[in-house]
Amino acid sequence: MTVAAMPLSNSGRVSLKQGGGGRAMRALIERLFIRDFAAMPFDGVGLAAMDDGAAIPMGDEWLVITTDSHVIHPIFFPGGDIGRISICGTVNDLAMMGATRILGLTCGVILEEGFPLEQLEAIQRSIVATCLEAGTVIVTGDTKVMGSGEIDGIAINTTGIAMTKRVIRDNALRVGDRIIVTGTIGDHGLAVMAARHGLELEGDLKSDVAPLNSLIALATAAMPEAITAMKDPTRGGLASALHEMASKSNVGVMLREASVPVTEAVRAAGEILGIDPLHVANEGKAVMGVRPEDADRMLAILRSHPLGRDAAIIGTASRRGRAH
Amino acid sequence: MTVAAMPLSNSGRVSLKQGGGGRAMRALIERLFIRDFAAMPFDGVGLAAMDDGAAIPMGDEWLVITTDSHVIHPIFFPGGDIGRISICGTVNDLAMMGATRILGLTCGVILEEGFPLEQLEAIQRSIVATCLEAGTVIVTGDTKVMGSGEIDGIAINTTGIAMTKRVIRDNALRVGDRIIVTGTIGDHGLAVMAARHGLELEGDLKSDVAPLNSLIALATAAMPEAITAMKDPTRGGLASALHEMASKSNVGVMLREASVPVTEAVRAAGEILGIDPLHVANEGKAVMGVRPEDADRMLAILRSHPLGRDAAIIGTASRRGRAH
Repeated sequence: MTVAAMPLSNSGRVSLKQGGGGRAMRALIERLFIRDFAAMPFDGVGLAAMDDGAAIPMGDEWLVITTDSHVIHPIFFPGGDIGRISICGTVNDLAMMGATRILGLTCGVILEEGFPLEQLEAIQRSIVATCLEAGTVIVTGDTKVMGSGEIDGIAINTTGIAMTKRVIRDNALRVGDRIIVTGTIGDHGLAVMAARHGLELEGDLKSDVAPLNSLIALATAAMPEAITAMKDPTRGGLASALHEMASKSNVGVMLREASVPVTEAVRAAGEILGIDPLHVANEGKAVMGVRPEDADRMLAILRSHPLGRDAAIIGTASRRGRAH
Repeated sequence: MTVAAMPLSNSGRVSLKQGGGGRAMRALIERLFIRDFAAMPFDGVGLAAMDDGAAIPMGDEWLVITTDSHVIHPIFFPGGDIGRISICGTVNDLAMMGATRILGLTCGVILEEGFPLEQLEAIQRSIVATCLEAGTVIVTGDTKVMGSGEIDGIAINTTGIAMTKRVIRDNALRVGDRIIVTGTIGDHGLAVMAARHGLELEGDLKSDVAPLNSLIALATAAMPEAITAMKDPTRGGLASALHEMASKSNVGVMLREASVPVTEAVRAAGEILGIDPLHVANEGKAVMGVRPEDADRMLAILRSHPLGRDAAIIGTASRRGRAH
């Protein structure tokens, strides 16, 4: 599950003013969408958990389900497009809960009348290619067209279902756990912002958008109990993901900022735009808590996978109140 | 799965011109979204079937999944609102495949900046009330806000998962099957159109939007094999649903139009607006093929349920070429 900017303005209207990932937004989401939904009887990990998805007990396993609506400008950006991000976002939300055996994805598309067919076909090719890369398939879908002015371009909702023997939560960090990120931070957010501002930058600044299920499957198959908590640092970035994991787990996090992998291109773009790479979205990275005795081996396993070759230990979960 | 108006205009752009439910739309949907997705390897009822949802084998049962994006104007209409229709649309798509044991629903909301909070709360209350009515629950969700002009008001995507021992398809009508509708036809479409045009009509013209899972569960529990094919006559109405079922089943349908239940209010509104009630959407009705020897008993069972009290036998599946 991803919750996005929806703070309440003074006028009693939904407002974008306070940007993404903030507390005001979270408060409103909780107030409006979580309160009553979460009160419904449900025997599993439901909305009240505000995790990346829900988990429903099925025999001795869990069925994990997650949904995400994707709107992004520009819809084609360096390293990806809205089609690729729609698939990866949902595959990764499933993977973050440990669910890497994907049963299928759904794809609901809302289009603006007049949307160029050539772009639609490019997005569809990207969806197909990303599904193949993730080893999954679109099993059902839906398409709606709205009049010009009713929607700006295209919005894609993707829902995914997957099975797992063990659900990994984002609220189970323990004091002493090592914090690992699976690669460089800030690539997606800065690539998209640079594209949005028409910024010409030297070097290879592109989104990291990628399906993480094979990386996480490798890690959980080798060490089924090593990961104590996991989240993908999407909207709000690594800072927000760590804050949420720590706060829900009732621990702090001692972050060694110098250990956080950041490419030169991202660092340079961040300086030009005045944006901290730790606060922007990633679309192909996981941040996990790992038991201290397993951390070095987990790091080696992650680094053996192409999507984890820049993985790093970046900190330690500490007693609450010592976070910074 | 619902596919909506997306015909290809001459300019290579998505167009609304040809309205809902037509063949041009279907051709484009097939060309763009079905072709490559359907070619992906999948061991179940997938996109190629263009049914109401997908079915995935799980042990000796089927997991059915369906998705639908909802955009409707006005968002509040006589008899319902976008929240109620989002839940019912998905619950009913599951039920049409015989899957009435719902594991959960997801809810993805896209909001326009400035959307009135009061309306959002009313929609949310409606979602909660409809879930309770259907005996289901929202297990995970997602909220995105778009700038003013990027979306007109609100769009809701709902995905549902449910289990069933027997999947009912929309392509298995057999010659001789009786065609049953579970109640009056045209109520939703004409209520919404009347509201859209600010038409003041006498009588009780309101949408039939309702969750059908308890009605279908009653029917399939009592007579597990009696229903040969089923569909909900949403966009395009009864005419389109019958056409699609017949065409996919390679049979015709002899419709006794005088037997189709239509309220006086709907008939009057249809005449004023110049619209045939058989061609407009229903949101709380099913049309099913039933083995001839089971038809009378099925009718009695349906009529014993509040949502089926106006059920009627409206025709018979015939040899292909005799449809009208």
